[in-house]
Amino acid sequence: MSGNSFGERFRITTFGESHGGAVGVIIDGCPAGHPFPHERIAQQLDRRRPGQNRLSSPRREPDAFIVQSGLDPDSGRTLGTPICMLVHNKDARSGHYNDVAAVYRPSHADFTYDARFGLRAIAGGGRSSARETIGRVAAGAVAEDLLAQLAGVEIVAWVDQVGSTTAQGVDGESLTRDQVDASMVRCPDAAAAEAMTAEIDAARKDADSVGGVLRCVARGVPAGWGEPVFDKLTASLAGAMMSLPAARAFEIGEGFGAAQLRGSQHNDPFTHDGQRIRTTTNRSGGIQGGISNGETIRLAVAFKPVATIFREQDTVTRDGTPVRFRPAKGRHDPCVLPRAVPMVEAMTALVLCDHFLRRAGIRTDELR
Amino acid sequence: MSGNSFGERFRITTFGESHGGAVGVIIDGCPAGHPFPHERIAQQLDRRRPGQNRLSSPRREPDAFIVQSGLDPDSGRTLGTPICMLVHNKDARSGHYNDVAAVYRPSHADFTYDARFGLRAIAGGGRSSARETIGRVAAGAVAEDLLAQLAGVEIVAWVDQVGSTTAQGVDGESLTRDQVDASMVRCPDAAAAEAMTAEIDAARKDADSVGGVLRCVARGVPAGWGEPVFDKLTASLAGAMMSLPAARAFEIGEGFGAAQLRGSQHNDPFTHDGQRIRTTTNRSGGIQGGISNGETIRLAVAFKPVATIFREQDTVTRDGTPVRFRPAKGRHDPCVLPRAVPMVEAMTALVLCDHFLRRAGIRTDELR
Amino acid sequence: MSGNSFGERFRITTFGESHGGAVGVIIDGCPAGHPFPHERIAQQLDRRRPGQNRLSSPRREPDAFIVQSGLDPDSGRTLGTPICMLVHNKDARSGHYNDVAAVYRPSHADFTYDARFGLRAIAGGGRSSARETIGRVAAGAVAEDLLAQLAGVEIVAWVDQVGSTTAQGVDGESLTRDQVDASMVRCPDAAAAEAMTAEIDAARKDADSVGGVLRCVARGVPAGWGEPVFDKLTASLAGAMMSLPAARAFEIGEGFGAAQLRGSQHNDPFTHDGQRIRTTTNRSGGIQGGISNGETIRLAVAFKPVATIFREQDTVTRDGTPVRFRPAKGRHDPCVLPRAVPMVEAMTALVLCDHFLRRAGIRTDELR
Amino acid sequence: MSGNSFGERFRITTFGESHGGAVGVIIDGCPAGHPFPHERIAQQLDRRRPGQNRLSSPRREPDAFIVQSGLDPDSGRTLGTPICMLVHNKDARSGHYNDVAAVYRPSHADFTYDARFGLRAIAGGGRSSARETIGRVAAGAVAEDLLAQLAGVEIVAWVDQVGSTTAQGVDGESLTRDQVDASMVRCPDAAAAEAMTAEIDAARKDADSVGGVLRCVARGVPAGWGEPVFDKLTASLAGAMMSLPAARAFEIGEGFGAAQLRGSQHNDPFTHDGQRIRTTTNRSGGIQGGISNGETIRLAVAFKPVATIFREQDTVTRDGTPVRFRPAKGRHDPCVLPRAVPMVEAMTALVLCDHFLRRAGIRTDELR
Repeated sequence: MSGNSFGERFRITTFGESHGGAVGVIIDGCPAGHPFPHERIAQQLDRRRPGQNRLSSPRREPDAFIVQSGLDPDSGRTLGTPICMLVHNKDARSGHYNDVAAVYRPSHADFTYDARFGLRAIAGGGRSSARETIGRVAAGAVAEDLLAQLAGVEIVAWVDQVGSTTAQGVDGESLTRDQVDASMVRCPDAAAAEAMTAEIDAARKDADSVGGVLRCVARGVPAGWGEPVFDKLTASLAGAMMSLPAARAFEIGEGFGAAQLRGSQHNDPFTHDGQRIRTTTNRSGGIQGGISNGETIRLAVAFKPVATIFREQDTVTRDGTPVRFRPAKGRHDPCVLPRAVPMVEAMTALVLCDHFLRRAGIRTDELR
Repeated sequence: MSGNSFGERFRITTFGESHGGAVGVIIDGCPAGHPFPHERIAQQLDRRRPGQNRLSSPRREPDAFIVQSGLDPDSGRTLGTPICMLVHNKDARSGHYNDVAAVYRPSHADFTYDARFGLRAIAGGGRSSARETIGRVAAGAVAEDLLAQLAGVEIVAWVDQVGSTTAQGVDGESLTRDQVDASMVRCPDAAAAEAMTAEIDAARKDADSVGGVLRCVARGVPAGWGEPVFDKLTASLAGAMMSLPAARAFEIGEGFGAAQLRGSQHNDPFTHDGQRIRTTTNRSGGIQGGISNGETIRLAVAFKPVATIFREQDTVTRDGTPVRFRPAKGRHDPCVLPRAVPMVEAMTALVLCDHFLRRAGIRTDELR
Repeated sequence: MSGNSFGERFRITTFGESHGGAVGVIIDGCPAGHPFPHERIAQQLDRRRPGQNRLSSPRREPDAFIVQSGLDPDSGRTLGTPICMLVHNKDARSGHYNDVAAVYRPSHADFTYDARFGLRAIAGGGRSSARETIGRVAAGAVAEDLLAQLAGVEIVAWVDQVGSTTAQGVDGESLTRDQVDASMVRCPDAAAAEAMTAEIDAARKDADSVGGVLRCVARGVPAGWGEPVFDKLTASLAGAMMSLPAARAFEIGEGFGAAQLRGSQHNDPFTHDGQRIRTTTNRSGGIQGGISNGETIRLAVAFKPVATIFREQDTVTRDGTPVRFRPAKGRHDPCVLPRAVPMVEAMTALVLCDHFLRRAGIRTDELR
Repeated sequence: MSGNSFGERFRITTFGESHGGAVGVIIDGCPAGHPFPHERIAQQLDRRRPGQNRLSSPRREPDAFIVQSGLDPDSGRTLGTPICMLVHNKDARSGHYNDVAAVYRPSHADFTYDARFGLRAIAGGGRSSARETIGRVAAGAVAEDLLAQLAGVEIVAWVDQVGSTTAQGVDGESLTRDQVDASMVRCPDAAAAEAMTAEIDAARKDADSVGGVLRCVARGVPAGWGEPVFDKLTASLAGAMMSLPAARAFEIGEGFGAAQLRGSQHNDPFTHDGQRIRTTTNRSGGIQGGISNGETIRLAVAFKPVATIFREQDTVTRDGTPVRFRPAKGRHDPCVLPRAVPMVEAMTALVLCDHFLRRAGIRTDELR
């Protein structure tokens, strides 16, 4: 396999180049009988699409998705068969890319794709485009709907840092997506949101880009999801997040902060709240030994500044000749963070839904 | 599958509980004809084993490994068939664990294993024990030998941070394992090593534990390894590292630092060194678009302080009754970092060897 | 996973219900740089489609396929990324199926799908329709083109038996597809072809159906393809063929005939033809120990008579009430064999192409 | 992966060469909490082992299996972690194989292994030895115990044909293993058993071998097991059986006989027996559309005569020189059929147990 599939039981395969006929996804393993969440998919795709506001790329794609298979026409429910969803590519202006056919853009995937495959889809960056994530977001919306309806799980991500600005006082236990979407930059701390917007605007003005950090919570995950060894929830989530374009770091719970603590400062004491066993703190971020413990899962992902900047840079051509390069005016976000919010939610949902289904049938007392 | 296997083409499956008959590993997909690296395996297992010095658990296990299959008795070469290696458990003192049968130790996997499986191997922590990593280290030594012999790849990890102490001036481009092993704590900065040792000794004296950060480099990886979407090298490495016991965070290249940079500060300009296309800086950590670009791969992993501390803590019994708990004197490291060095090297090698083999046969011009 | 994917390295996933929006396939793992064989795909789809002549279902579908992804627009070559092909469903007359919504048709999948999923796509039989094989045939044409261009492999299948008529004197070593297609029934023995056609016509006249046997050869497969244990070529081919609708039996080489022989009658003596090691007979059907030996691969597949017959039969409704049932006039082949020829060729190609790619990189002497 | 694993959820990996240190198996995905069936495993291994009587190879191996992992030492129950079982090789007389180091034995895997891997384990045939099936039989016994305890499934195989002798009047609906084991040849038709024994004795006397056919039934499989497309029960069973050494053909239900029938003769009418929907005939062999329908699953497997015969044959050396070859007196069965009975039962159990577990969690109405 070539790494275009993700998940064991709720398994998705994405396809499509940025400027090809379509991009899309197949979900294999979606349980049968689920009312298909058209509306939720449309909402998350809308949060992901470019052209939402001045912070994101002006490429205009309605991103209307077509479901080609997997639904019962009579009931609208899932059949338990593969669900193929795709979005046609409409506003691809390949002419914009003539200048990059012969030049390796710094910190893009042009050089590495050529090194691997011997050729690449030059226009739009092919599979390395963030457009590939449309399929992830669409499938992730199905996953989060299953999780919400069948297990009561809620997933919310937000922009926690842009450049030098970090949000303060965000309460992951109560945060809603409406609160996140209250600001264009998707940071629920209004003061920080303003400063982040200013940082992004400044970067754009400088023909530059800027990085940042997303945080995400998953609330309501019951104890017992996750495999003990290689497919720990921590491992699955880390792999999922680090597969997103521009992701450079991942944390669960206290993350790097845990490295500075002693065990007596980091351990989460157990207690009983009258209903079930809980922990009184949640430094573990909801995962112990790779398995959920019933507390809120807390994670963070750092994204680098996007590689496309409209400044002149040193680079080489395909044959290695040094050149100075500045892209012709294309359409790119100076900061991917706001649009990455639904991507991180989608990857979280895909991991959790997969482990939800992997939990089924693993105990003889539940198989009789 | 239950998450006990790792890798697509160089695929390992680990088995064994800490206090069962044996722990071990099967490698499936090791290429045929490779002289089996008994010595390298023994060395890395020796670096991993407890009881090396006063910094690590006094559990004494010779960790002598037996190869049950996969080798040609005549030539000592790999047959291309599954290689089963195992280490018998000898010094398991299960009596030490009587006190934990009924109590959920804070931030251990006792509770989550019970929540998942309905029962667990109580003595020694079963699969959640670091003893599970023996199989990873043994298989990783085979992987790194293949990488070294067939592709010229070198992997070196070191302890970069313990608690509040961070190493300075380590040069990943030239660092050797001998330099790393010069100090008991496996930090090549001698001054930092001394301070780290003091931090660990202080934690032990306080019946406490302490966390830290490992860094690792892989030198000599050619351009073109890694899949473009879900199995990016970044994703595979992140999943690999976050599957290690106590891992809490992962970075590639600049990691979280990249979040604070602008594109003009983070992009790596391309150049040509007369032999091949290079970058003049390496903020990408050797990976662009998920694929290696021929520069040194640089990663970091944060580990929490180990959960076992010999202090009294609040917790509950299996039925949820609050109790105060202090473990009877067992055998545990106050800091896992020094012994985690060969584990991080092993996981790096397993990822790279898998992607080395996945690279074979993906281009028609190489299949004729 | 839910069994909609096939292959390890040349991996296909089919999707689509017979009367949904589209049916199609994703190929993941097609090597990069291959000129895409549009024409070959169209030819094989044309041999598969209904309405070719009076022997097959009159459903008229042009079966024009659209490639949504995976090709370089400049060179027309494969990019090494997922190739999504689909065919829109046009002539679906779902009204024909009103009568089967409440009734379980004998020996169809209506009852078993309901038992498994709790619901099913009633019109057209959903995934159990032979229309699902469009994706297999399209992907199989890509596979056989790779095999032909890169390894010199040729695959030819033919109808060897229909009901009581069996072909005589067919020489698998020289047979061409043109010879096969010379008769409507795709049997290269002209006399048998005539008798088979008569049997099919008689079955149709009796509102009945009839079964048969296909044979297939793959010429030019070099020695060394196939895995030694569970993924023997014999096993992969058997699983592939028995996944086709209506397949009931599979043979390699002498098949059931081998059960009656002694070793001295069945063994194939080795010889050397001046170029390479050969066998003087080929009772093994080109596979020994699960691995190809360089001789022609010979297999057979038996198909049952299709379940749809226009006669009244005993059955029950979904709630178990006995009824007499005769389908309204729908569109079905009285004999699937002629249209199954490209399906068997496709499954053979998919297996062989997968094992061709699995052969890459398994020996250290070929990895340097 | 290299084809040493089988199954999706109840996944086994076998390892070990015939004359290496050990042969064995890892089961990954065995549900937690099952009382481990030591006795059943020992019984099936005993039915598989050589040296049972004069019909089988005189190699004497007690085949005592050791469980290295996966069991709770306190309760003896499965932990839900990998179960490693192995059998040490004791009576390997590698000297017997000196004569075959340089010669390709006709219809053995010597030549094809060399063609694939460039080297092979010469003594004992390595992985191509029937000794590899020890792991399958041990794991299959665990699978059939789970099926029996949790789902009420019973599996019985028997020898139905040896050479020219075929059993008559065997009733698969009531047959027991005791009835099968009543004769040395494992044929429940006493008269046929006698004739088969004579055929085998005659073959041995002639320094020859003889082939045959096994049949197998699985009773009590509920409706709804099996995936609809590539992992149909028919496909999974066919792949499983054809992965056994010397298997050459496979049938489900009427098999090749179905090719001669009309639909009106082959269709199974549905009825209702007061409890559940049934069919009045079972030509489908319990599987429709790839999914179990609640009737008895009926299959057959043909085995070729074993390749080892003690007669002089034409062959070549590794470098292609023609030679006459007769093996030194080794230890081989003139007919594998009696010992293949537990192998076919094991593969049937492995397929069914895997599909039993794959059935869990596929419907939303069962996930709440």
